[in-house]
Amino acid sequence: MTTRDDLALANRLADAAGAAIRPFFRARYDMELKSDKSPVTEADRAAEAAIRAILEKERPQDGIIGEEYGSVRTDAERVWILDPIDGTRSFIAGRPIFGTLIALTQAGWPTIGIIDQPIAQERWAGMAGQPTTFNGQPVRTRLCRELEGAGIATTSPHLFADGDVPHYMALVAAVSGGAPRQGPVYGGDCYNYGLLASGFLDIVIESGLKSYDFAALVPVVEGAGGVMCDWNGEPLTAQSEGHVLALGDPARLEDVLEALHAAHDHDH
Amino acid sequence: MTTRDDLALANRLADAAGAAIRPFFRARYDMELKSDKSPVTEADRAAEAAIRAILEKERPQDGIIGEEYGSVRTDAERVWILDPIDGTRSFIAGRPIFGTLIALTQAGWPTIGIIDQPIAQERWAGMAGQPTTFNGQPVRTRLCRELEGAGIATTSPHLFADGDVPHYMALVAAVSGGAPRQGPVYGGDCYNYGLLASGFLDIVIESGLKSYDFAALVPVVEGAGGVMCDWNGEPLTAQSEGHVLALGDPARLEDVLEALHAAHDHDH
Repeated sequence: MTTRDDLALANRLADAAGAAIRPFFRARYDMELKSDKSPVTEADRAAEAAIRAILEKERPQDGIIGEEYGSVRTDAERVWILDPIDGTRSFIAGRPIFGTLIALTQAGWPTIGIIDQPIAQERWAGMAGQPTTFNGQPVRTRLCRELEGAGIATTSPHLFADGDVPHYMALVAAVSGGAPRQGPVYGGDCYNYGLLASGFLDIVIESGLKSYDFAALVPVVEGAGGVMCDWNGEPLTAQSEGHVLALGDPARLEDVLEALHAAHDHDH
Repeated sequence: MTTRDDLALANRLADAAGAAIRPFFRARYDMELKSDKSPVTEADRAAEAAIRAILEKERPQDGIIGEEYGSVRTDAERVWILDPIDGTRSFIAGRPIFGTLIALTQAGWPTIGIIDQPIAQERWAGMAGQPTTFNGQPVRTRLCRELEGAGIATTSPHLFADGDVPHYMALVAAVSGGAPRQGPVYGGDCYNYGLLASGFLDIVIESGLKSYDFAALVPVVEGAGGVMCDWNGEPLTAQSEGHVLALGDPARLEDVLEALHAAHDHDH
Protein backbone atom coordinates (compact mmCIF):
# COMPACT_ATOMS: atom_id res chain seq x y z
CA MET A 1 0.00 0.00 0.00
CA THR A 2 1.21 3.50 -0.76
CA THR A 3 1.85 5.53 2.30
CA ARG A 4 3.26 8.88 3.33
CA ASP A 5 6.50 6.97 3.84
CA ASP A 6 6.58 6.16 0.15
CA LEU A 7 6.07 9.83 -0.69
CA ALA A 8 8.84 10.80 1.71
CA LEU A 9 11.07 8.23 0.02
CA ALA A 10 10.13 9.53 -3.43
CA ASN A 11 11.16 13.00 -2.30
CA ARG A 12 14.50 11.61 -1.08
CA LEU A 13 15.00 9.97 -4.47
CA ALA A 14 14.36 13.28 -6.23
CA ASP A 15 16.78 15.05 -3.89
CA ALA A 16 19.46 12.47 -4.70
CA ALA A 17 18.85 12.75 -8.44
CA GLY A 18 19.03 16.55 -8.29
CA ALA A 19 22.30 16.44 -6.38
CA ALA A 20 23.68 14.08 -9.02
CA ILE A 21 22.52 16.25 -11.94
CA ARG A 22 23.38 19.77 -10.80
CA PRO A 23 27.19 19.51 -11.17
CA PHE A 24 26.75 18.54 -14.83
CA PHE A 25 24.35 21.32 -15.85
CA ARG A 26 26.09 23.66 -18.32
CA ALA A 27 29.34 21.83 -17.59
CA ARG A 28 31.40 19.20 -19.37
CA TYR A 29 30.31 15.58 -19.36
CA ASP A 30 30.42 12.41 -21.41
CA MET A 31 27.59 11.87 -23.84
CA GLU A 32 26.65 9.19 -26.32
CA LEU A 33 23.82 8.39 -28.69
CA LYS A 34 21.61 5.38 -28.04
CA SER A 35 20.52 3.10 -30.87
CA ASP A 36 17.55 5.40 -31.61
CA LYS A 37 20.03 8.33 -31.78
CA SER A 38 18.59 9.82 -28.58
CA PRO A 39 21.35 11.23 -26.39
CA VAL A 40 22.28 9.98 -22.96
CA THR A 41 24.73 11.80 -20.71
CA GLU A 42 26.76 11.09 -17.61
CA ALA A 43 24.14 13.13 -15.76
CA ASP A 44 21.27 10.80 -16.78
CA ARG A 45 23.28 7.81 -15.61
CA ALA A 46 24.52 9.34 -12.38
CA ALA A 47 21.01 10.40 -11.43
CA GLU A 48 19.41 7.02 -12.14
CA ALA A 49 22.25 5.22 -10.31
CA ALA A 50 21.74 7.48 -7.27
CA ILE A 51 18.01 6.71 -7.21
CA ARG A 52 18.49 2.97 -7.66
CA ALA A 53 21.09 2.74 -4.90
CA ILE A 54 18.57 4.16 -2.43
CA LEU A 55 15.70 1.98 -3.70
CA GLU A 56 17.76 -1.22 -3.50
CA LYS A 57 18.53 -0.41 0.11
CA GLU A 58 15.13 0.90 1.24
CA ARG A 59 12.70 -1.16 -0.86
CA PRO A 60 14.60 -4.29 -1.92
CA GLN A 61 11.41 -6.13 -2.87
CA ASP A 62 9.99 -3.45 -5.15
CA GLY A 63 10.53 -3.61 -8.88
CA ILE A 64 12.34 -0.89 -10.84
CA ILE A 65 11.98 0.20 -14.46
CA GLY A 66 14.49 2.85 -15.42
CA GLU A 67 15.21 4.52 -18.73
CA GLU A 68 18.98 4.05 -18.49
CA TYR A 69 19.57 0.88 -16.46
CA GLY A 70 16.65 -1.35 -17.41
CA SER A 71 14.23 -3.40 -15.35
CA VAL A 72 14.32 -5.61 -12.26
CA ARG A 73 11.48 -7.44 -10.45
CA THR A 74 8.83 -6.05 -12.78
CA ASP A 75 6.41 -8.74 -11.59
CA ALA A 76 6.41 -7.16 -8.11
CA GLU A 77 3.19 -5.57 -6.88
CA ARG A 78 5.04 -2.29 -6.44
CA VAL A 79 7.25 -1.00 -9.24
CA TRP A 80 9.16 2.28 -9.38
CA ILE A 81 9.40 3.87 -12.81
CA LEU A 82 12.26 6.30 -13.36
CA ASP A 83 13.34 8.77 -15.99
CA PRO A 84 16.38 10.48 -14.50
CA ILE A 85 16.33 13.29 -17.07
CA ASP A 86 13.19 13.75 -19.13
CA GLY A 87 14.23 16.29 -21.74
CA THR A 88 17.87 15.31 -22.13
CA ARG A 89 18.27 17.52 -25.21
CA SER A 90 16.88 20.45 -23.26
CA PHE A 91 19.36 19.66 -20.45
CA ILE A 92 22.20 19.52 -22.98
CA ALA A 93 21.16 22.88 -24.41
CA GLY A 94 21.36 24.38 -20.92
CA ARG A 95 17.65 24.99 -20.39
CA PRO A 96 16.39 24.76 -16.80
CA ILE A 97 13.11 23.12 -17.81
CA PHE A 98 13.98 19.41 -18.04
CA GLY A 99 12.90 17.15 -15.19
CA THR A 100 13.50 14.02 -13.16
CA LEU A 101 10.47 11.72 -13.20
CA ILE A 102 9.82 9.27 -10.38
CA ALA A 103 6.68 7.15 -10.19
CA LEU A 104 5.54 4.37 -7.90
CA THR A 105 3.04 2.04 -9.53
CA GLN A 106 0.94 -0.61 -7.81
CA ALA A 107 -0.56 -3.32 -9.93
CA GLY A 108 0.52 -1.21 -12.87
CA TRP A 109 -1.24 1.93 -11.70
CA PRO A 110 0.77 5.05 -10.79
CA THR A 111 0.00 6.10 -7.21
CA ILE A 112 2.90 8.48 -6.62
CA GLY A 113 4.46 10.82 -9.14
CA ILE A 114 7.19 13.43 -8.90
CA ILE A 115 8.35 15.95 -11.50
CA ASP A 116 11.52 17.57 -10.23
CA GLN A 117 13.42 20.46 -11.83
CA PRO A 118 16.73 20.47 -9.97
CA ILE A 119 18.19 23.72 -11.31
CA ALA A 120 15.22 25.99 -10.60
CA GLN A 121 14.55 23.78 -7.54
CA GLU A 122 10.92 23.25 -8.48
CA ARG A 123 9.09 20.07 -7.58
CA TRP A 124 5.58 18.86 -8.31
CA ALA A 125 4.50 15.88 -6.20
CA GLY A 126 1.30 13.90 -6.68
CA MET A 127 -0.16 11.02 -4.68
CA ALA A 128 -3.40 9.21 -5.46
CA GLY A 129 -6.25 10.74 -3.48
CA GLN A 130 -4.19 13.70 -2.27
CA PRO A 131 -3.83 17.24 -3.62
CA THR A 132 -0.79 17.76 -5.82
CA THR A 133 1.84 20.07 -4.38
CA PHE A 134 4.37 22.42 -5.92
CA ASN A 135 7.31 22.94 -3.58
CA GLY A 136 5.07 21.76 -0.78
CA GLN A 137 2.07 24.02 -1.51
CA PRO A 138 -1.16 22.61 -2.99
CA VAL A 139 -1.80 23.55 -6.62
CA ARG A 140 -4.88 23.30 -8.84
CA THR A 141 -5.39 23.28 -12.58
CA ARG A 142 -7.42 26.18 -13.98
CA LEU A 143 -10.83 26.24 -15.62
CA CYS A 144 -10.91 26.38 -19.39
CA ARG A 145 -14.25 27.59 -20.70
CA GLU A 146 -13.63 27.04 -24.40
CA LEU A 147 -11.03 25.51 -26.66
CA GLU A 148 -10.29 28.70 -28.57
CA GLY A 149 -7.57 30.55 -26.72
CA ALA A 150 -6.63 27.60 -24.51
CA GLY A 151 -2.96 27.29 -23.58
CA ILE A 152 -1.57 24.25 -25.40
CA ALA A 153 1.93 22.76 -25.34
CA THR A 154 3.85 19.92 -26.92
CA THR A 155 7.56 19.13 -26.96
CA SER A 156 8.36 18.69 -30.65
CA PRO A 157 6.41 18.39 -33.89
CA HIS A 158 8.75 15.55 -34.92
CA LEU A 159 7.48 13.27 -32.15
CA PHE A 160 4.16 12.79 -33.96
CA ALA A 161 3.92 9.91 -36.41
CA ASP A 162 2.69 10.95 -39.87
CA GLY A 163 -0.78 9.61 -39.10
CA ASP A 164 -0.96 11.69 -35.92
CA VAL A 165 -0.25 15.01 -37.60
CA PRO A 166 -3.70 15.77 -39.10
CA HIS A 167 -5.32 15.11 -35.73
CA TYR A 168 -2.83 17.24 -33.89
CA MET A 169 -3.14 20.08 -36.41
CA ALA A 170 -6.96 19.95 -36.21
CA LEU A 171 -6.70 20.48 -32.46
CA VAL A 172 -4.19 23.31 -32.96
CA ALA A 173 -6.57 24.95 -35.44
CA ALA A 174 -9.43 24.76 -32.94
CA VAL A 175 -7.33 26.17 -30.12
CA SER A 176 -5.67 28.93 -32.12
CA GLY A 177 -8.72 30.09 -34.04
CA GLY A 178 -6.99 29.12 -37.28
CA ALA A 179 -3.72 30.96 -36.49
CA PRO A 180 -1.31 28.12 -35.64
CA ARG A 181 1.64 30.47 -35.14
CA GLN A 182 -0.30 31.85 -32.19
CA GLY A 183 -1.10 28.35 -30.96
CA PRO A 184 1.15 25.90 -29.13
CA VAL A 185 4.21 26.58 -27.11
CA TYR A 186 6.87 24.02 -28.03
CA GLY A 187 9.57 22.31 -26.01
CA GLY A 188 9.19 21.66 -22.33
CA ASP A 189 8.96 17.86 -21.97
CA CYS A 190 7.60 16.92 -18.52
CA TYR A 191 7.77 20.53 -17.34
CA ASN A 192 4.63 21.27 -19.37
CA TYR A 193 2.61 18.85 -17.25
CA GLY A 194 3.79 20.55 -14.07
CA LEU A 195 2.76 23.92 -15.47
CA LEU A 196 -0.63 22.47 -16.40
CA ALA A 197 -1.03 21.16 -12.84
CA SER A 198 -0.26 24.67 -11.56
CA GLY A 199 -2.89 26.23 -13.84
CA PHE A 200 -0.68 27.91 -16.46
CA LEU A 201 -1.50 25.62 -19.38
CA ASP A 202 -4.77 23.93 -20.38
CA ILE A 203 -3.73 21.15 -22.74
CA VAL A 204 -0.58 19.09 -23.26
CA ILE A 205 -0.65 16.62 -26.12
CA GLU A 206 2.10 14.22 -27.13
CA SER A 207 2.79 11.03 -28.95
CA GLY A 208 5.43 8.36 -28.68
CA LEU A 209 5.78 8.58 -24.91
CA LYS A 210 7.08 5.56 -23.05
CA SER A 211 5.75 4.51 -19.64
CA TYR A 212 8.77 6.10 -17.94
CA ASP A 213 7.84 9.36 -19.70
CA PHE A 214 4.27 9.49 -18.44
CA ALA A 215 3.79 7.31 -15.32
CA ALA A 216 4.91 10.08 -12.94
CA LEU A 217 2.76 12.68 -14.69
CA VAL A 218 -0.57 11.02 -13.94
CA PRO A 219 -0.72 11.52 -10.15
CA VAL A 220 0.60 15.08 -10.56
CA VAL A 221 -2.00 16.11 -13.12
CA GLU A 222 -4.94 14.23 -11.61
CA GLY A 223 -4.18 15.28 -8.03
CA ALA A 224 -4.36 18.88 -9.25
CA GLY A 225 -7.83 18.36 -10.74
CA GLY A 226 -6.86 17.56 -14.31
CA VAL A 227 -7.22 14.44 -16.39
CA MET A 228 -4.73 12.31 -18.33
CA CYS A 229 -5.79 9.86 -21.00
CA ASP A 230 -4.93 8.65 -24.47
CA TRP A 231 -6.16 10.31 -27.68
CA ASN A 232 -9.41 8.35 -27.43
CA GLY A 233 -10.11 9.42 -23.86
CA GLU A 234 -9.10 6.00 -22.48
CA PRO A 235 -6.93 5.64 -19.39
CA LEU A 236 -3.19 5.48 -20.04
CA THR A 237 -1.61 2.13 -19.34
CA ALA A 238 1.77 0.60 -19.96
CA GLN A 239 0.07 -0.81 -23.07
CA SER A 240 -0.94 2.62 -24.37
CA GLU A 241 0.68 3.53 -27.63
CA GLY A 242 2.16 6.65 -26.11
CA HIS A 243 -0.60 9.00 -27.32
CA VAL A 244 -0.86 11.17 -24.26
CA LEU A 245 -3.35 13.93 -23.55
CA ALA A 246 -3.43 16.03 -20.39
CA LEU A 247 -6.23 18.49 -19.69
CA GLY A 248 -6.42 20.92 -16.82
CA ASP A 249 -10.20 21.15 -17.05
CA PRO A 250 -11.85 17.73 -17.52
CA ALA A 251 -14.97 19.54 -18.78
CA ARG A 252 -13.14 20.21 -22.07
CA LEU A 253 -12.29 16.55 -22.74
CA GLU A 254 -15.17 15.96 -25.11
CA ASP A 255 -14.34 19.11 -27.11
CA VAL A 256 -10.70 18.11 -27.40
CA LEU A 257 -11.51 14.58 -28.56
CA GLU A 258 -14.01 15.96 -31.05
CA ALA A 259 -11.44 18.40 -32.47
CA LEU A 260 -8.78 15.66 -32.67
CA HIS A 261 -11.05 13.26 -34.50
CA ALA A 262 -12.71 15.82 -36.76
CA ALA A 263 -9.53 15.34 -38.80
CA HIS A 264 -10.62 11.84 -39.87
CA ASP A 265 -12.62 13.35 -42.71
CA HIS A 266 -9.56 15.12 -44.07
CA ASP A 267 -7.14 12.21 -43.92
CA HIS A 268 -5.73 10.98 -47.14
CA MET B 1 29.15 57.03 -29.87
CA THR B 2 28.47 53.97 -27.75
CA THR B 3 30.21 54.08 -24.44
CA ARG B 4 30.42 52.13 -21.23
CA ASP B 5 27.83 54.65 -19.97
CA ASP B 6 25.39 53.36 -22.57
CA LEU B 7 26.02 49.79 -21.44
CA ALA B 8 25.48 50.79 -17.83
CA LEU B 9 22.24 52.48 -18.86
CA ALA B 10 21.15 49.36 -20.80
CA ASN B 11 21.72 47.32 -17.65
CA ARG B 12 19.58 49.77 -15.66
CA LEU B 13 16.84 49.43 -18.28
CA ALA B 14 16.95 45.65 -17.95
CA ASP B 15 16.83 45.91 -14.16
CA ALA B 16 13.75 48.12 -14.40
CA ALA B 17 12.03 45.79 -16.86
CA GLY B 18 12.73 42.78 -14.65
CA ALA B 19 11.33 44.53 -11.60
CA ALA B 20 8.19 45.34 -13.60
CA ILE B 21 7.80 41.78 -14.90
CA ARG B 22 8.51 39.65 -11.83
CA PRO B 23 5.29 40.42 -9.91
CA PHE B 24 3.24 39.20 -12.89
CA PHE B 25 5.05 35.88 -13.45
CA ARG B 26 2.70 32.99 -12.65
CA ALA B 27 0.25 35.52 -11.23
CA ARG B 28 -2.96 37.15 -12.47
CA TYR B 29 -2.81 39.92 -15.05
CA ASP B 30 -4.77 41.46 -17.87
CA MET B 31 -4.15 40.06 -21.30
CA GLU B 32 -5.44 40.76 -24.79
CA LEU B 33 -4.82 39.59 -28.32
CA LYS B 34 -3.33 41.97 -30.85
CA SER B 35 -4.64 42.13 -34.42
CA ASP B 36 -2.32 39.25 -35.42
CA LYS B 37 -3.73 37.24 -32.47
CA SER B 38 -0.42 37.44 -30.62
CA PRO B 39 -0.96 37.98 -26.92
CA VAL B 40 0.13 41.02 -24.95
CA THR B 41 -0.06 41.21 -21.19
CA GLU B 42 0.08 43.85 -18.50
CA ALA B 43 3.63 42.63 -17.87
CA ASP B 44 4.78 43.43 -21.44
CA ARG B 45 3.33 46.92 -21.13
CA ALA B 46 4.60 47.62 -17.63
CA ALA B 47 8.10 46.54 -18.61
CA GLU B 48 8.23 48.65 -21.77
CA ALA B 49 6.78 51.66 -19.93
CA ALA B 50 9.44 51.30 -17.23
CA ILE B 51 12.21 51.25 -19.83
CA ARG B 52 10.83 54.18 -21.80
CA ALA B 53 10.42 56.34 -18.70
CA ILE B 54 14.15 55.98 -17.99
CA LEU B 55 15.15 56.55 -21.62
CA GLU B 56 13.05 59.70 -21.96
CA LYS B 57 14.79 61.10 -18.91
CA GLU B 58 18.35 59.94 -19.57
CA ARG B 59 18.56 60.04 -23.38
CA PRO B 60 15.83 62.43 -24.54
CA GLN B 61 17.36 62.82 -28.00
CA ASP B 62 17.64 59.12 -28.79
CA GLY B 63 14.96 57.37 -30.80
CA ILE B 64 12.90 54.45 -29.43
CA ILE B 65 11.25 51.55 -31.24
CA GLY B 66 9.24 49.35 -28.91
CA GLU B 67 7.05 46.35 -29.58
CA GLU B 68 4.18 47.61 -27.43
CA TYR B 69 4.30 51.43 -27.54
CA GLY B 70 5.54 52.18 -31.03
CA SER B 71 8.25 54.48 -32.33
CA VAL B 72 9.58 57.97 -31.60
CA ARG B 73 12.50 59.88 -33.19
CA THR B 74 13.44 56.96 -35.43
CA ASP B 75 15.50 59.33 -37.60
CA ALA B 76 17.88 59.89 -34.67
CA GLU B 77 21.45 58.59 -35.03
CA ARG B 78 20.94 56.49 -31.91
CA VAL B 79 17.80 54.39 -31.58
CA TRP B 80 16.89 51.98 -28.77
CA ILE B 81 14.97 48.89 -29.85
CA LEU B 82 12.90 47.18 -27.18
CA ASP B 83 11.00 43.95 -26.80
CA PRO B 84 9.87 43.93 -23.17
CA ILE B 85 8.93 40.25 -23.25
CA ASP B 86 10.23 38.16 -26.12
CA GLY B 87 8.38 34.87 -25.70
CA THR B 88 5.12 36.21 -24.29
CA ARG B 89 3.40 32.83 -24.72
CA SER B 90 6.22 31.18 -22.83
CA PHE B 91 5.83 33.82 -20.08
CA ILE B 92 2.08 33.16 -19.96
CA ALA B 93 2.71 29.42 -19.65
CA GLY B 94 4.94 30.07 -16.65
CA ARG B 95 8.26 29.13 -18.24
CA PRO B 96 11.33 30.95 -16.97
CA ILE B 97 12.94 31.12 -20.41
CA PHE B 98 11.39 34.23 -22.00
CA GLY B 99 13.49 37.39 -22.13
CA THR B 100 13.61 41.17 -22.22
CA LEU B 101 15.48 42.45 -25.28
CA ILE B 102 17.18 45.82 -25.28
CA ALA B 103 19.30 47.05 -28.18
CA LEU B 104 21.01 50.31 -28.97
CA THR B 105 21.50 50.92 -32.67
CA GLN B 106 23.63 53.57 -34.31
CA ALA B 107 22.99 54.39 -37.92
CA GLY B 108 20.81 51.28 -37.93
CA TRP B 109 23.52 48.99 -36.60
CA PRO B 110 23.11 47.30 -33.19
CA THR B 111 26.07 48.17 -30.96
CA ILE B 112 24.64 47.11 -27.60
CA GLY B 113 22.39 44.13 -26.92
CA ILE B 114 20.94 42.67 -23.77
CA ILE B 115 18.98 39.45 -23.29
CA ASP B 116 17.61 39.42 -19.75
CA GLN B 117 15.75 36.56 -18.06
CA PRO B 118 14.31 38.20 -14.96
CA ILE B 119 13.02 35.09 -13.15
CA ALA B 120 16.20 33.03 -13.31
CA GLN B 121 18.12 36.33 -13.05
CA GLU B 122 20.25 35.54 -16.07
CA ARG B 123 21.59 38.29 -18.31
CA TRP B 124 23.62 38.19 -21.49
CA ALA B 125 25.13 41.56 -22.47
CA GLY B 126 26.94 42.30 -25.71
CA MET B 127 28.69 45.44 -26.92
CA ALA B 128 30.38 45.88 -30.29
CA GLY B 129 34.07 45.10 -29.99
CA GLN B 130 33.78 43.71 -26.46
CA PRO B 131 33.41 40.15 -25.19
CA THR B 132 29.84 39.18 -24.40
CA THR B 133 29.13 38.55 -20.75
CA PHE B 134 26.70 36.29 -18.90
CA ASN B 135 25.94 37.69 -15.47
CA GLY B 136 29.11 39.70 -15.75
CA GLN B 137 31.44 36.86 -16.80
CA PRO B 138 32.78 36.59 -20.37
CA VAL B 139 31.30 33.76 -22.43
CA ARG B 140 32.31 32.18 -25.73
CA THR B 141 30.45 30.12 -28.29
CA ARG B 142 31.76 26.58 -28.82
CA LEU B 143 33.44 24.97 -31.79
CA CYS B 144 31.27 22.82 -34.02
CA ARG B 145 33.32 20.47 -36.17
CA GLU B 146 30.50 19.09 -38.30
CA LEU B 147 26.82 19.65 -38.91
CA GLU B 148 25.73 16.17 -37.90
CA GLY B 149 25.12 16.17 -34.19
CA ALA B 150 25.12 19.96 -33.87
CA GLY B 151 22.77 21.43 -31.28
CA ILE B 152 20.01 23.25 -33.14
CA ALA B 153 17.03 25.20 -31.81
CA THR B 154 14.03 27.09 -33.11
CA THR B 155 10.97 28.45 -31.34
CA SER B 156 8.06 27.01 -33.30
CA PRO B 157 7.57 25.16 -36.58
CA HIS B 158 4.57 27.40 -37.30
CA LEU B 159 6.75 30.49 -37.60
CA PHE B 160 8.15 29.27 -40.92
CA ALA B 161 6.28 30.29 -44.06
CA ASP B 162 5.37 27.35 -46.32
CA GLY B 163 8.26 28.14 -48.66
CA ASP B 164 10.72 28.10 -45.75
CA VAL B 165 9.83 24.62 -44.57
CA PRO B 166 11.75 22.51 -47.14
CA HIS B 167 14.90 24.53 -46.45
CA TYR B 168 14.49 24.25 -42.71
CA MET B 169 13.79 20.51 -42.91
CA ALA B 170 16.84 19.96 -45.13
CA LEU B 171 19.00 21.57 -42.45
CA VAL B 172 17.31 19.48 -39.75
CA ALA B 173 18.02 16.32 -41.77
CA ALA B 174 21.69 17.26 -42.10
CA VAL B 175 22.02 18.01 -38.40
CA SER B 176 20.08 15.01 -37.13
CA GLY B 177 21.53 12.42 -39.50
CA GLY B 178 18.06 11.84 -40.92
CA ALA B 179 16.37 11.38 -37.51
CA PRO B 180 14.45 14.67 -37.08
CA ARG B 181 12.92 13.59 -33.75
CA GLN B 182 16.47 13.63 -32.42
CA GLY B 183 17.12 17.01 -34.01
CA PRO B 184 15.99 20.43 -32.89
CA VAL B 185 14.96 21.57 -29.46
CA TYR B 186 11.84 23.71 -29.80
CA GLY B 187 10.61 26.72 -27.87
CA GLY B 188 13.00 29.13 -26.24
CA ASP B 189 12.62 32.40 -28.17
CA CYS B 190 15.55 34.76 -27.42
CA TYR B 191 16.86 32.45 -24.70
CA ASN B 192 18.21 30.13 -27.40
CA TYR B 193 20.56 32.86 -28.63
CA GLY B 194 21.91 33.37 -25.13
CA LEU B 195 22.54 29.65 -24.78
CA LEU B 196 24.31 29.68 -28.14
CA ALA B 197 26.51 32.59 -26.95
CA SER B 198 27.36 30.51 -23.86
CA GLY B 199 28.34 27.50 -25.97
CA PHE B 200 25.40 25.15 -25.33
CA LEU B 201 23.82 25.33 -28.79
CA ASP B 202 25.43 25.55 -32.23
CA ILE B 203 22.64 26.79 -34.51
CA VAL B 204 19.50 28.83 -34.01
CA ILE B 205 17.33 29.33 -37.07
CA GLU B 206 14.12 31.31 -37.31
CA SER B 207 11.86 33.11 -39.69
CA GLY B 208 9.44 35.98 -39.35
CA LEU B 209 11.48 37.86 -36.76
CA LYS B 210 10.97 41.61 -36.47
CA SER B 211 13.83 44.02 -35.79
CA TYR B 212 12.83 44.21 -32.12
CA ASP B 213 13.16 40.41 -32.00
CA PHE B 214 16.72 40.26 -33.32
CA ALA B 215 18.51 43.62 -32.89
CA ALA B 216 19.62 42.83 -29.34
CA LEU B 217 20.76 39.33 -30.28
CA VAL B 218 23.46 40.44 -32.73
CA PRO B 219 25.94 42.01 -30.27
CA VAL B 220 25.38 39.13 -27.83
CA VAL B 221 26.08 36.40 -30.38
CA GLU B 222 28.88 38.17 -32.25
CA GLY B 223 30.64 39.35 -29.09
CA ALA B 224 30.78 35.69 -28.01
CA GLY B 225 32.46 34.63 -31.25
CA GLY B 226 29.41 33.61 -33.24
CA VAL B 227 27.82 35.00 -36.35
CA MET B 228 24.31 36.21 -37.16
CA CYS B 229 23.05 36.60 -40.69
CA ASP B 230 20.06 35.92 -42.90
CA TRP B 231 19.42 32.60 -44.67
CA ASN B 232 21.70 33.69 -47.50
CA GLY B 233 24.58 34.56 -45.23
CA GLU B 234 23.96 38.30 -45.60
CA PRO B 235 24.05 40.69 -42.64
CA LEU B 236 20.73 41.23 -40.88
CA THR B 237 19.26 44.68 -41.29
CA ALA B 238 15.97 46.28 -40.41
CA GLN B 239 15.12 45.47 -44.04
CA SER B 240 15.80 41.74 -43.63
CA GLU B 241 12.78 39.57 -44.14
CA GLY B 242 13.18 38.09 -40.68
CA HIS B 243 15.05 34.97 -41.81
CA VAL B 244 17.53 34.76 -38.99
CA LEU B 245 20.43 32.37 -38.58
CA ALA B 246 22.81 32.31 -35.63
CA LEU B 247 25.89 30.10 -35.57
CA GLY B 248 28.23 29.59 -32.68
CA ASP B 249 31.08 28.53 -34.97
CA PRO B 250 31.38 30.76 -38.06
CA ALA B 251 33.41 27.98 -39.73
CA ARG B 252 30.15 26.05 -40.25
CA LEU B 253 28.36 28.86 -42.06
CA GLU B 254 29.05 27.52 -45.52
CA ASP B 255 27.85 24.01 -44.55
CA VAL B 256 24.65 25.42 -43.08
CA LEU B 257 23.89 27.55 -46.14
CA GLU B 258 24.60 24.58 -48.39
CA ALA B 259 22.24 22.35 -46.40
CA LEU B 260 19.52 25.01 -46.38
CA HIS B 261 19.71 25.55 -50.11
CA ALA B 262 20.16 21.91 -51.09
CA ALA B 263 16.39 21.84 -50.66
CA HIS B 264 15.92 23.89 -53.83
CA ASP B 265 16.18 20.73 -55.88
CA HIS B 266 13.37 19.09 -53.97
CA ASP B 267 10.93 22.00 -53.98
CA HIS B 268 7.65 21.51 -55.71
